[in-house]
Amino acid sequence: MKVSIILAAGEGSRMKSKKPKVIHEILGKPMLGYVIDAARSSHSDRISIVIGHGKELIQERFENAEVTFRNQPIGEGEPYGTGFAVMQALDDFQDDDTVLILTGDTPLITAETLEGLADYHERGHFACTILTADMNNPTGYGRIVRNDAADIMAIVEEKDASAKEKIIREINSGIFAFQGKALREALGHLNTDNASGELYLTDVVEYFSQQGERIGGFKLCNNLEIHGINSRDALAKATEYMQRRVNAHYMKEGVTMIAPDTIVIEDGVVIGRDTVIYPGAILQGQTVIGEDCTIYGNTRIVDSVIGDDVTIDNAFIESSHVGDHTTVGPYAHLRPKSNVGCHVKIGNFVEVKNANFGDGSKAGHLAYIGDADVGENVNVGCGVVFVNYDGKNKYRSTVADGAFIGSNANLVAPVTVEKNGYIAAGSTITSDVKADQLAVERAPRRDVDGWVSRKGLK
Amino acid sequence: MKVSIILAAGEGSRMKSKKPKVIHEILGKPMLGYVIDAARSSHSDRISIVIGHGKELIQERFENAEVTFRNQPIGEGEPYGTGFAVMQALDDFQDDDTVLILTGDTPLITAETLEGLADYHERGHFACTILTADMNNPTGYGRIVRNDAADIMAIVEEKDASAKEKIIREINSGIFAFQGKALREALGHLNTDNASGELYLTDVVEYFSQQGERIGGFKLCNNLEIHGINSRDALAKATEYMQRRVNAHYMKEGVTMIAPDTIVIEDGVVIGRDTVIYPGAILQGQTVIGEDCTIYGNTRIVDSVIGDDVTIDNAFIESSHVGDHTTVGPYAHLRPKSNVGCHVKIGNFVEVKNANFGDGSKAGHLAYIGDADVGENVNVGCGVVFVNYDGKNKYRSTVADGAFIGSNANLVAPVTVEKNGYIAAGSTITSDVKADQLAVERAPRRDVDGWVSRKGLK
Amino acid sequence: MKVSIILAAGEGSRMKSKKPKVIHEILGKPMLGYVIDAARSSHSDRISIVIGHGKELIQERFENAEVTFRNQPIGEGEPYGTGFAVMQALDDFQDDDTVLILTGDTPLITAETLEGLADYHERGHFACTILTADMNNPTGYGRIVRNDAADIMAIVEEKDASAKEKIIREINSGIFAFQGKALREALGHLNTDNASGELYLTDVVEYFSQQGERIGGFKLCNNLEIHGINSRDALAKATEYMQRRVNAHYMKEGVTMIAPDTIVIEDGVVIGRDTVIYPGAILQGQTVIGEDCTIYGNTRIVDSVIGDDVTIDNAFIESSHVGDHTTVGPYAHLRPKSNVGCHVKIGNFVEVKNANFGDGSKAGHLAYIGDADVGENVNVGCGVVFVNYDGKNKYRSTVADGAFIGSNANLVAPVTVEKNGYIAAGSTITSDVKADQLAVERAPRRDVDGWVSRKGLK
Repeated sequence: MKVSIILAAGEGSRMKSKKPKVIHEILGKPMLGYVIDAARSSHSDRISIVIGHGKELIQERFENAEVTFRNQPIGEGEPYGTGFAVMQALDDFQDDDTVLILTGDTPLITAETLEGLADYHERGHFACTILTADMNNPTGYGRIVRNDAADIMAIVEEKDASAKEKIIREINSGIFAFQGKALREALGHLNTDNASGELYLTDVVEYFSQQGERIGGFKLCNNLEIHGINSRDALAKATEYMQRRVNAHYMKEGVTMIAPDTIVIEDGVVIGRDTVIYPGAILQGQTVIGEDCTIYGNTRIVDSVIGDDVTIDNAFIESSHVGDHTTVGPYAHLRPKSNVGCHVKIGNFVEVKNANFGDGSKAGHLAYIGDADVGENVNVGCGVVFVNYDGKNKYRSTVADGAFIGSNANLVAPVTVEKNGYIAAGSTITSDVKADQLAVERAPRRDVDGWVSRKGLK
Repeated sequence: MKVSIILAAGEGSRMKSKKPKVIHEILGKPMLGYVIDAARSSHSDRISIVIGHGKELIQERFENAEVTFRNQPIGEGEPYGTGFAVMQALDDFQDDDTVLILTGDTPLITAETLEGLADYHERGHFACTILTADMNNPTGYGRIVRNDAADIMAIVEEKDASAKEKIIREINSGIFAFQGKALREALGHLNTDNASGELYLTDVVEYFSQQGERIGGFKLCNNLEIHGINSRDALAKATEYMQRRVNAHYMKEGVTMIAPDTIVIEDGVVIGRDTVIYPGAILQGQTVIGEDCTIYGNTRIVDSVIGDDVTIDNAFIESSHVGDHTTVGPYAHLRPKSNVGCHVKIGNFVEVKNANFGDGSKAGHLAYIGDADVGENVNVGCGVVFVNYDGKNKYRSTVADGAFIGSNANLVAPVTVEKNGYIAAGSTITSDVKADQLAVERAPRRDVDGWVSRKGLK
Repeated sequence: MKVSIILAAGEGSRMKSKKPKVIHEILGKPMLGYVIDAARSSHSDRISIVIGHGKELIQERFENAEVTFRNQPIGEGEPYGTGFAVMQALDDFQDDDTVLILTGDTPLITAETLEGLADYHERGHFACTILTADMNNPTGYGRIVRNDAADIMAIVEEKDASAKEKIIREINSGIFAFQGKALREALGHLNTDNASGELYLTDVVEYFSQQGERIGGFKLCNNLEIHGINSRDALAKATEYMQRRVNAHYMKEGVTMIAPDTIVIEDGVVIGRDTVIYPGAILQGQTVIGEDCTIYGNTRIVDSVIGDDVTIDNAFIESSHVGDHTTVGPYAHLRPKSNVGCHVKIGNFVEVKNANFGDGSKAGHLAYIGDADVGENVNVGCGVVFVNYDGKNKYRSTVADGAFIGSNANLVAPVTVEKNGYIAAGSTITSDVKADQLAVERAPRRDVDGWVSRKGLK
């Protein structure tokens, strides 16, 4: 069995945050979530997470993640250190398990690397295998000390390193594979006899070496994978790397992106071929976008399904459906439960909410279509308001196929406009309009000649 | 005479697109268009394009480009390869022509480089001159093999290269200059006796070498110029490079840009000095922008003429004119044929379409001015709609100088408001308003005391 | 005493601008302003600025900067050169002063560097100390020539440099510290016996060397600090560097940024911890943003105070206050003097201007609230207009707590709606509405059956 233990008890004080570090988000997912996903994709049978600072927030965020939480006691009298953290999960693995020790603040780690590490570890029958990396500038990292036979002898921390050791460029990533029995035994021999008075997991390496156990070193190809996040700056960089990884995936699948570094696509989005995305788009949640779409400007789409050949310009679309060949925007807002048909035009300054809006219908400008069922080929004029709220309750209106709602008209819900019904501009309609009927609500006009100059307005 | 043959028959399967690769766009122009333009600017007298996959789409896109299309047969029984492609254009050059062979998927090539290549070729009296480049990582490219006298002997493809040849860093760009006669003769000696069974143009180099013909090598200064596009990722990078080239040009001419990598300016745009462009602008088509303008945010301007000292904030402007000292936005939309004067204010959530809007007039908020001729110093109130459509036909309205259109008023076209005419707020106006006249359409007000609490609304 | 003399007389012709180079802005502050601020922060007791080209514009821009302006005569018969520039400020320092010579077009210089330079200069008792830098590519810079004892002997300009001197990588930044007396004396010995016929400040170095005076060299750590701006391209790069410096500061203080290179934050902005800023935001002027806010999209905030836990999406906020837990946008505009309370919703296509808008009130869509005092828990319906302007004067309206303003209603100011007053949709209200009262302005409806088909509209 393969067990992953993810160390996530740290506070991350350099983040200067009320939240524990590992739930800070990258493209809409907490960084710890990426580590959990990598562990799961690399076929971990069990995932334990050692938490401490802000543990309630972490548990709440991952309550459906099918992981085991282990609490690391923190505070006066409690030991510190990664070794102590791992001890909290002693019950989570058996002697013959392969145990991966992961860090919750390195979200760029990939399942491929973890699989490679575990395979290498198991085939080599090592007590412990360290994920190592060659760094151009190793300052600050623990160095991997090898003997003349290239066997790993120890990990030496920066502050304990001799001048000769400091020039070693191979470093400890903080990620390990252990044989369960060896790990359990070695943890029992850790002590706090060091400058920091902490229980360091890395000390097990020297212990194994002394015991004559074999220690593996599995070298990372892409050092970005162990980019650790201790600051908002490092978070921004991880976000940038993740964006590139994610966006490269979509481009490989046939999506065109202009200035991809400005385009934010969160986990779970699907985009069809030959869709073109201009700078500044944000695509979030369970969003599906069809083929041949064009997404301009500063559009944000959340949890929505967009058809083929749709043009979206500067719109915010939430939990909605948009049919094929439809245009939305510029400056439009589809609020949740908007179901917009095919060949529809949702023009500038139009809001739709909890409404069906049928094929071929148009709302070109400055309208609010809320709580309504609008049929096909309906023309919603400029400034039209579906008045759905009386200050206490919301009501729903219905507009049948072919109807025409004149400019600045109000439809006071609940009201029905039958097929081809016609409402004159400026009318406030509070009862149904029949098929083929014109409804006008308008007062007689009064004129006052010479009024403007008499009033001194000109 | 100078002839350019552009190879553009490939499918570009890694693009995963319904369109042939060479019509994918970079800053609004198909990549093939850049190659055609470079060929033309380097004084090619004739340009032939060898097409195959998606040839109809390419021909349609370039029907006005004054180029000759040659069709490369594709399919079972037909040979493959660049040599076979060039053979399709045998009728397009004479023996004493200089023939440039270009690739349709390297849009960053410059006219300067092509001129330099042709000059070098002609002065050196070479049978063939290869555009070469020194690559830090030559993997995947054909290597330029030279003898001890530094004469080019052959181009060796990656898969045929010996270990020694693989370390050669000088590579074949795929771009050549030929003497017409030599090219014709060499093409006659190509064969498919190679691993791929294709007719390779590069084989002519070895043929020339065997014949004792002189082969030139013209080395590229900037390797970006032969950045080839086989994927959307490469397309995004080419777009980024082209953006930098284009934006550097505007900055050199006196335009200030903030975060230029986020600013997309397409071919043909003119921008005056001391204009400042903030991140995210998209300028497209035949757009001319004056001096001292400020363009904020996510503005898109297409085929429009903007005067001097104009401030545009988050607007979409299509096929329109905007006069000097005018402000547009934030969140405004000028649809085609909007002719906006000087010292005008087009404020937030205002749309103009097919309308004249005179000097000093204002539409500050939430208005639609469609199909109208509005004079000078007119005040269009908030929520005003020019009602131009009855469901079947569109009509035009006229508002003379100095008129005042009250808030939420409707002007039902066709209607004329004479000079200094005044429409009260909330009026729907269906017939003309005379000069100096006040027009009011309003019903008497009814009040119901205590209604709110009786209705249980509070 | 410490005196800084900033050289800012140049035209900057490569900027192609009507404005003198040094008032071109980086993140909203003229580049010269950064140099002044660095001089002031490094404890200069006096700051003199030598101006020439465009001097009026510079003086106007810095009229409150507490600096002394010195005019460098420019034109026929006048000498050119940095030496001549410094001579204009001879009255501004005493013999025992430390005089820093700074350049107005290197805005990235830091106070730390200037302090280091002055300290080094004073402790070493040098006549002159040059701020030097090691450049990978020194082409174009004056080289620092040292003797075998590493003492600085001269600054040799590019065009006068021997082949041997050209490979020197240590260059002159153009920034110096002088002992006042030595500077005065050396300036008296400058002459125009050189290729350009200019009075070069750098010639003083050779003079000092000949006099046996000691010359210091203080080497810069970060060469970016002397990035000089001669073109819009260099201005864009300086802006990018400054953005990174500024944004790194906010991230260090606990602000999350996504794609920080697209986020523009000007001097003087304060942002609370755990606030998240998405790509494209522009924060300007004296803006204060609270904790836990989310700022989406293309938001611009100028001179405004935003509370905690505020969500702003695609909004433009000017000189306004926004209370805690409020949401603004998408597509909203708070014009100056908008005072928006807590738990407020300002929704899409809503504009507020010179208005108070109380806690818990809502204006969800397509409304204009101008010149108004709106109480708490008021519902402003869709399309509502506060009609504040009669074409000549502006008036103010009042809406008390709990009132309900129906959709597309007009409130013609001055008007008061008392507590829980209720205005029906479509009403234009010109006089007060009493507490608990319903006010309706609406004409009787007329219906015309069969009108639509008779008119041929369907």
